[in-house]
Amino acid sequence: MKLYNYWRSSASWRVRIALAWKALPYDYVPVNLLEKENTGEAYRALNPIQQVPTLMLDDGRQLSQSLAILEYLEETHPTPPLLPKDPYLRARARQLAEVVNSGTQPFQNLPTLTVFKEAGRDPSELAAGFIRRGLDALARSAEPTAGKFLVGDAPSFADVCLVPQLNAARRFKLDVAAWPVLARVEEACNALEAFHIAHADRQPDAVTGAK
Amino acid sequence: MKLYNYWRSSASWRVRIALAWKALPYDYVPVNLLEKENTGEAYRALNPIQQVPTLMLDDGRQLSQSLAILEYLEETHPTPPLLPKDPYLRARARQLAEVVNSGTQPFQNLPTLTVFKEAGRDPSELAAGFIRRGLDALARSAEPTAGKFLVGDAPSFADVCLVPQLNAARRFKLDVAAWPVLARVEEACNALEAFHIAHADRQPDAVTGAK
Repeated sequence: MKLYNYWRSSASWRVRIALAWKALPYDYVPVNLLEKENTGEAYRALNPIQQVPTLMLDDGRQLSQSLAILEYLEETHPTPPLLPKDPYLRARARQLAEVVNSGTQPFQNLPTLTVFKEAGRDPSELAAGFIRRGLDALARSAEPTAGKFLVGDAPSFADVCLVPQLNAARRFKLDVAAWPVLARVEEACNALEAFHIAHADRQPDAVTGAK
Repeated sequence: MKLYNYWRSSASWRVRIALAWKALPYDYVPVNLLEKENTGEAYRALNPIQQVPTLMLDDGRQLSQSLAILEYLEETHPTPPLLPKDPYLRARARQLAEVVNSGTQPFQNLPTLTVFKEAGRDPSELAAGFIRRGLDALARSAEPTAGKFLVGDAPSFADVCLVPQLNAARRFKLDVAAWPVLARVEEACNALEAFHIAHADRQPDAVTGAK
């Protein structure tokens, strides 16, 4: 498999965590979003909606949208799992993942920030407001199930989404200590090898000291 | 089961389609978003993040986030299905659903429109721009798999997300004929009884002539 991705994209990062967790080897193909490589002809032929990540399977077929890719990896490589066995808890893990995926992250990505800027507002300030609201929702939603991780004592899609989102929150100058349960679970995640390997700062295209 | 929802909320509508498709009976509990019933004490106790829909199971446990609920219904009531059998096509159906769920809908919901308004811009104009971009992405992404429906010849999560999204697009004064594949699939969906039953305009809290 090949993963077309960008070190700091949180959707890319989620897929890297899942691939590392399931010990699936892949070629890392960097797509520089700041240099708009995603809008170039080569990448558009691969992914018409010009987003990262794209996972190219060994037979050349492609998938995008990080949660769809996580579900695909879970179905095709179920062990070790990233979802609980119980149907209700599986749904709770997906619910928390969606609070990040559809409730928070869309407001901080580059195309959205560009629109905010064109609308004449400080895009960072607007995005930070959305992120704060999203993390409030995530922390409250996690209350009924949180153990060592967001749903019980094993990492799930929820944690896979949490870690890149907290990193993004810091870039927008939020103090994640405001959400003690999230900060604690992040620490538990980062102690795991798969999360360590997949971290943005450890990717080949990472830029030291980038803002 | 009880579904706390709002006739015109597209996330609510998605869950209604799935419940109707699987012929699962439920009590319809309206939550009036315009009157902010979702922020009242009674609903907040049920759903701390104050969004619709919430599905209350027969044992009193609750689920929210429409795609997490769709996955739950698919796992607990697999027949008739709303996902193909093939793992790759399942992933494609989820991918298209996410183009709507995380790539389009977040920019048109009420809390987002409120922020756009506070930012001093015409919220409808901003939202319409995001919806146009989202539907462009959806139409392009559907090309490799579209048959009678967005993924082959049976309805899937992708179509469940499509129908309410096109309705929202019209509210924001977009002409969906600009996306022939989407308009054609919508027509095929609306010919199915489950989609007919679940339509916003046929719910008990629907308001005739609402803008």
